[in-house]
Amino acid sequence: MQFTAHELSLLLNGTVEGDPSVPVNQLAKIEEAQTGSLSFLANPKYEQYLYTTDASVVIVNNDLSLSAPLKATLIRVENAYSAFSLLLEKYNTLKLNKTGIEQPSFIHPSAQIGENAYVGAFAYIGPNVKIGTNCKIYPHCYIADDVIIGSNVTLFPGVKVYFDCVLGNNIIIHSGTIVGGDGFGFAPTANGTYTKISQIGNVIIEDDVEIGANTTVDRATLGSTIIRKGVKLDNLVQVAHNVEIMANTVVAAQTGISGSSKVGENCIIGGQVGVVGHISIAKGSQIQAKSGISRSIVDEGRKWAGAPAVSYQDNLRSQVVINRLPELEKKVNELEKIIAELKKGQ
Amino acid sequence: MQFTAHELSLLLNGTVEGDPSVPVNQLAKIEEAQTGSLSFLANPKYEQYLYTTDASVVIVNNDLSLSAPLKATLIRVENAYSAFSLLLEKYNTLKLNKTGIEQPSFIHPSAQIGENAYVGAFAYIGPNVKIGTNCKIYPHCYIADDVIIGSNVTLFPGVKVYFDCVLGNNIIIHSGTIVGGDGFGFAPTANGTYTKISQIGNVIIEDDVEIGANTTVDRATLGSTIIRKGVKLDNLVQVAHNVEIMANTVVAAQTGISGSSKVGENCIIGGQVGVVGHISIAKGSQIQAKSGISRSIVDEGRKWAGAPAVSYQDNLRSQVVINRLPELEKKVNELEKIIAELKKGQ
Amino acid sequence: MQFTAHELSLLLNGTVEGDPSVPVNQLAKIEEAQTGSLSFLANPKYEQYLYTTDASVVIVNNDLSLSAPLKATLIRVENAYSAFSLLLEKYNTLKLNKTGIEQPSFIHPSAQIGENAYVGAFAYIGPNVKIGTNCKIYPHCYIADDVIIGSNVTLFPGVKVYFDCVLGNNIIIHSGTIVGGDGFGFAPTANGTYTKISQIGNVIIEDDVEIGANTTVDRATLGSTIIRKGVKLDNLVQVAHNVEIMANTVVAAQTGISGSSKVGENCIIGGQVGVVGHISIAKGSQIQAKSGISRSIVDEGRKWAGAPAVSYQDNLRSQVVINRLPELEKKVNELEKIIAELKKGQ
Repeated sequence: MQFTAHELSLLLNGTVEGDPSVPVNQLAKIEEAQTGSLSFLANPKYEQYLYTTDASVVIVNNDLSLSAPLKATLIRVENAYSAFSLLLEKYNTLKLNKTGIEQPSFIHPSAQIGENAYVGAFAYIGPNVKIGTNCKIYPHCYIADDVIIGSNVTLFPGVKVYFDCVLGNNIIIHSGTIVGGDGFGFAPTANGTYTKISQIGNVIIEDDVEIGANTTVDRATLGSTIIRKGVKLDNLVQVAHNVEIMANTVVAAQTGISGSSKVGENCIIGGQVGVVGHISIAKGSQIQAKSGISRSIVDEGRKWAGAPAVSYQDNLRSQVVINRLPELEKKVNELEKIIAELKKGQ
Repeated sequence: MQFTAHELSLLLNGTVEGDPSVPVNQLAKIEEAQTGSLSFLANPKYEQYLYTTDASVVIVNNDLSLSAPLKATLIRVENAYSAFSLLLEKYNTLKLNKTGIEQPSFIHPSAQIGENAYVGAFAYIGPNVKIGTNCKIYPHCYIADDVIIGSNVTLFPGVKVYFDCVLGNNIIIHSGTIVGGDGFGFAPTANGTYTKISQIGNVIIEDDVEIGANTTVDRATLGSTIIRKGVKLDNLVQVAHNVEIMANTVVAAQTGISGSSKVGENCIIGGQVGVVGHISIAKGSQIQAKSGISRSIVDEGRKWAGAPAVSYQDNLRSQVVINRLPELEKKVNELEKIIAELKKGQ
Repeated sequence: MQFTAHELSLLLNGTVEGDPSVPVNQLAKIEEAQTGSLSFLANPKYEQYLYTTDASVVIVNNDLSLSAPLKATLIRVENAYSAFSLLLEKYNTLKLNKTGIEQPSFIHPSAQIGENAYVGAFAYIGPNVKIGTNCKIYPHCYIADDVIIGSNVTLFPGVKVYFDCVLGNNIIIHSGTIVGGDGFGFAPTANGTYTKISQIGNVIIEDDVEIGANTTVDRATLGSTIIRKGVKLDNLVQVAHNVEIMANTVVAAQTGISGSSKVGENCIIGGQVGVVGHISIAKGSQIQAKSGISRSIVDEGRKWAGAPAVSYQDNLRSQVVINRLPELEKKVNELEKIIAELKKGQ
């Protein structure tokens, strides 16, 4: 894919300053760009790079006034950041613009797939599966019996969805993520062994959810594990059986949420956080990376840190003293001696 | 799948109270059940829901006496919980009751597969593999050269088993789990680079083990990484090379056990725990989530917490003071001033 | 594969002591070896096992003098450890010595694959992919459009490489690892929802890198996430968008490195470590397992521990006092009382 500055200016409704025939074939940051790159300048802080960049074309705001000569061809637009974002998105759409059914793939005769689908080679779509329109099921995906998937859903290579799960619309799930594996449920017996508790619930993923790579979302024992509208889960996250994550909550990588816990709306949960089972986290909670949430959070919209977690502010204050602990202990021992002396002298 | 209350009563050896012809097509908790659901009441604490539930049929104990009118049809049995568990299991069995060899799959001519097998499309079974009877190898599983698998083993979609590994009977491994990848073994060289140490051991998984999704169990450098009988591993667990986990130990999600460590029988290890290499953990140990086990645990059957871990009780006592540290430090500073005054006044 | 002591002695340029016709068909540690095993004795500490081992053949150093009778046949060589390492490597090479294109696989007509390749069944190689010589692409691997791969690269079963990524030479990636999934980038909107930020950068993996199983390396938003020459990543590691890990750094299992952070050369990072985004870690840093790195590390070659991390030595000193905190608090409270008495008495 190669475009000239002139062609891009038409696409972005901008005006060219410099050579309109100069070609670009990649997008790059202005400070890293090489010949053949298209870049942008939105933040005045970076203006210095405009005069040294090797980018062939730079998108800038209409009102930018130059303070030195430059090599690059400019395209002037109303809003350089928005124009560049638009190009990013167009580039991405182009790269991911797959359609058609590749062979060999396995589509059970009873499965229904909506219009304009992509089904990659080696994808497996089981009995009674229903898939809406404009879905992309990449190679090595597995969609088990009776799964229902809405429209505009992309499952990247190797996603596995176990039976009975339900996915809404506009969902993206990245490679290697497992939806609907058995919850970790075992009943101890008298002789120390464990009996498996059948996990026959499912997973429901609502609209506008994005899930990263190699994440696991377990099916409910009974009922549903639910990922509500607009939730974003990062890579390698663990969501246990019967968990419910409310709308627009984001969860960073390697965090684990134990069985039956409920996470409120619009929470921001850092990476490597652990949440114990059977608790609730109030909406708007912000949880620092590596925290351990060991009891329910009732107050909305507060910040938490530590394991076990306390308020962010309290954690900070304790951390400061922890690093001074050896000195504190030493001081106490010295005071003890002085007091003993004082007592003797009394 | 739809059943009437009458049909279920025959299956469960129970008696119907209400409309025997009412149909149900799903299982649900009594407090969440909708029309068409079958539910159960075992715990008297939940009896209130019996009179308000939308469940069409509820299984109850023979000796339950009703205290209000209700809409649902009842099936009375000896033990409502057991009866419902039986149905869960039957439902699960039905859903997972796959047999036959789907095409295209890859089965090396030298591989042996026992009777009543399911081999899903795109499954790969390599040279000299031996698989017992009643096994289910779901789509996208990979079983490398010379692997031996017992009977009644289920490998869910996308499980990978590297060469020479040995699996016993009655094993369940969930999607995306990797058995037998190379241990993380590298020898540092004088110039700062690393030389790979060949990992030619294997992994042995004994009978009755269940492993969750996207877990990794590395092959031994030499000898075997061993998961003993009845062990249960959750999702995203890391088991390094030459580790041995003894019988009936359970390990929750995102825990990691480093190279050559031995975990005793009947331990319970929480989520996100880390265990360093080359140590032993005594049998019956219970390790709190997020703990870091940095040295061997010798005493059996005790509880541990913290990173580095100490006894559960000690950890609890220290945690309480940690949260009061700023006040403690302040108090010490005040005492210091008073003592200085006292000393001056002496 | 079976060899006699005589055949091995020729291969290792050694001399046989005992029965040259005794056959071996596996490699084992001297303390675990059974009949039919080949073992070695390099460390004099283990000499006792030489006289009790069931190994059929043991490789020993030329200068070893025996102190008791033994059952095993010996092969004497210059350096027993090196000789055995050589055999390990040969065994491994033999086991992994796959070539040819298995069917069914998917190779886009525009893809180029160098000589002596192995492409396993159900592998997917997309449009414009370029792969060098001597590469092994195992079953269920997915290599997306425009990916470039050097020579002597092994991708074990189920590795997924998203579009535009670039891999160098002599790279090993284990099963289930995802290279090039979208970075976790979302812009919050006024109504609490998030807008996805297109991730159009790529991942670059340089020569001599090894990556474990089920690890995730996200593509850059713009530009590249870079894993430099000789880096070794363990299983279940998370590398976020725009991270750069410099040459010969090793990262143990379940560690996560957040967006745009830079890890210097020759660092050693333990398991379950978390590194926040947008910081740098100086070269030669050694970071204890479970640490949380919350700010840049500027000094080279130092050891760190704790979450948030401080110097290894400081962490150790604080940990010691943490375990004595209840006693320290008690002592302070007692001193307070004594001081109150003293003050009164003044």
